[in-house]
Amino acid sequence: MSCDHPDLLPLDEALTRLWAALPAPPVLELRADRDDPASDLAAMDGVALRAAEGLAPRRLLGTLYAGDDPAAFTVTPGTAVRIMTGAALPPGADAILPVEQLREAEGLIHPLEVPRPGDHTRARGEQARAGDLLLSAERPFSAVRVALQAWVGQPVPPLGRIRVAVASTGDELVAHPRPHQIRDSNGPMLAALAHTLGAEVERRPSLPDDPAALGRALRNAGGARILLTSGGVSMGEHDHLPSVLKDLGATILFHKIRLKPGKPMLAAQLDDLLVLALPGNPVSAYLNALIFLPVALARLEGRAMPDAWHWGRLTAAVKTKGDRPFMVPCRRTGSQLHPLAGKGSADLVTLAQADAFAWVDPGGREPGAEVRYLTIV
Amino acid sequence: MSCDHPDLLPLDEALTRLWAALPAPPVLELRADRDDPASDLAAMDGVALRAAEGLAPRRLLGTLYAGDDPAAFTVTPGTAVRIMTGAALPPGADAILPVEQLREAEGLIHPLEVPRPGDHTRARGEQARAGDLLLSAERPFSAVRVALQAWVGQPVPPLGRIRVAVASTGDELVAHPRPHQIRDSNGPMLAALAHTLGAEVERRPSLPDDPAALGRALRNAGGARILLTSGGVSMGEHDHLPSVLKDLGATILFHKIRLKPGKPMLAAQLDDLLVLALPGNPVSAYLNALIFLPVALARLEGRAMPDAWHWGRLTAAVKTKGDRPFMVPCRRTGSQLHPLAGKGSADLVTLAQADAFAWVDPGGREPGAEVRYLTIV
Repeated sequence: MSCDHPDLLPLDEALTRLWAALPAPPVLELRADRDDPASDLAAMDGVALRAAEGLAPRRLLGTLYAGDDPAAFTVTPGTAVRIMTGAALPPGADAILPVEQLREAEGLIHPLEVPRPGDHTRARGEQARAGDLLLSAERPFSAVRVALQAWVGQPVPPLGRIRVAVASTGDELVAHPRPHQIRDSNGPMLAALAHTLGAEVERRPSLPDDPAALGRALRNAGGARILLTSGGVSMGEHDHLPSVLKDLGATILFHKIRLKPGKPMLAAQLDDLLVLALPGNPVSAYLNALIFLPVALARLEGRAMPDAWHWGRLTAAVKTKGDRPFMVPCRRTGSQLHPLAGKGSADLVTLAQADAFAWVDPGGREPGAEVRYLTIV
Repeated sequence: MSCDHPDLLPLDEALTRLWAALPAPPVLELRADRDDPASDLAAMDGVALRAAEGLAPRRLLGTLYAGDDPAAFTVTPGTAVRIMTGAALPPGADAILPVEQLREAEGLIHPLEVPRPGDHTRARGEQARAGDLLLSAERPFSAVRVALQAWVGQPVPPLGRIRVAVASTGDELVAHPRPHQIRDSNGPMLAALAHTLGAEVERRPSLPDDPAALGRALRNAGGARILLTSGGVSMGEHDHLPSVLKDLGATILFHKIRLKPGKPMLAAQLDDLLVLALPGNPVSAYLNALIFLPVALARLEGRAMPDAWHWGRLTAAVKTKGDRPFMVPCRRTGSQLHPLAGKGSADLVTLAQADAFAWVDPGGREPGAEVRYLTIV
């Protein structure tokens, strides 16, 4: 295979580099603040009784619902207490007989099965003892971590969103275009995508093709944690972003990746601002945002690396040129991926027909080939 | 295989029913408002010239950047204009010679290859003619649809979030629990999950185990589009939600699904409010919210049905009892799924160690079996 771009960074390395460069917020280890369960509990709806009395009928003393103080009743020989799942066992009881295993008549319950001690109960401390480690600080942030945090009585973190600013670059972008001008479609597209991915989005005016103005805009990100730009990262004379970022002292995480479309992609850190400088062509900009933004957001929120890739099967051959992997827009039916013949990286119309981007290795793939894909959102 | 729950709805049918019951907001068909491109454009950085003059040297008249008015120059015999990708071709020029295919010396450019008419240009109307259909009303809402909408000059929809109210039910839920009481972990968990899935979340006070109070709370959803509850949908004496919903005239979409954990799941429509009444056990509540909430949100936002399932391989056998599919919490390494031995549907601690829920058909699966899974977020 020819290697016409030996300097290009493979995508997975770019993702790893981005992940490693961003700081995850600290999460705590969580320990049980009390035994879990804190008392013996009913694990089913039924009656709480003394197992040793076997099939003898019992007189019902009353009912315990989840949350009721079990000291309201004491189960003595010949008695039982109706009990609901999650309620604490009353003193004297050592087993739950489920409703399905008893018959009730004239205020008495008659067991249909012989109960054994501990039947259908959750014993105090069965899950954890006070002080036990429940979750290490290595486990990522998730809704389940939040639940456990609340469970042990720790304050729950506020529900925040990462602020993402979106700006297109290019003097050709105007609201009312003449034939040599165009409207900005990347800005609204990237704003909608970032919003869908959970960010709090802030639209910025389009950035001019002027190094000094670009520098001012980059230094004044207004509290955003991530800046998404599109355009200005290629080799053209007006592609000032890479040099402006360098002049500002930004750390370039990578520039140019082994991917088609989307090669000119640049990621940089400018103090606390992550700049994801996307290519200007809409298909390239969309694809790179779909790949890189979820990873950046997850990392900054302390979440696990997103599990974005699915597997499917191509229904038609896909040919590629050159040595870059090609992500081909596809219609999807279940796991069947139907490649769409697009007109290249400016072709929003074909992209709008697609449900997924399938990964095709250099050299192309035959019909029926198993490939990984990303879902278009 | 035994069929101990013939009345339970299979999960995929429940999802289809939920999808069909919810109204998607209307989206428009999109038509080109002008030719696309609106003029002949440069598709590469280079010089715009007259192909017929072949290898003859040309004098450079100036430079056209994307967005520049091309009428500033007219390419006459012996001349050319430097041009950047996306700029309109100046009058007289019919081809782009890329920078890589020319040599520059003393104000003249010397072609190294013979240009052909149309080389490296995007012809006016090549993508679409004014009035052409670009996107049918059948295609779902997406960031790409937004881009195309902006591209043809239509107003872009505001970035909204679906309002989701979250309330737990149960008298046992208190902030400072005695041994027979517990803290509410489902409320914070479901709020965090809904937030992560893109909703605007509103926490509600816990709902009491009282039909009249439940009815008042359901009728007063305060503008939320979806209400997530946990608990109160099982067969216990305090599980009032199903009957309260029926008494209020709600349409029950389904109640009880063929899934373990999570069988008591209920979905109902109460006027404009979708009630997703989740089971009270935390693992069941989490799993059902992870399954049903993304589908409801996508539908209400006009998006495509979420592509939530991934495929992986079990690294150990998973046994099941009964005839319900079992979703087993797993640690995940790439596509390897390591099943975790949990203590059932109250076991938040094991769930917090898990990265995924793997689907295991009734009868169990052997090590190495390919299974679908959902990612825990």
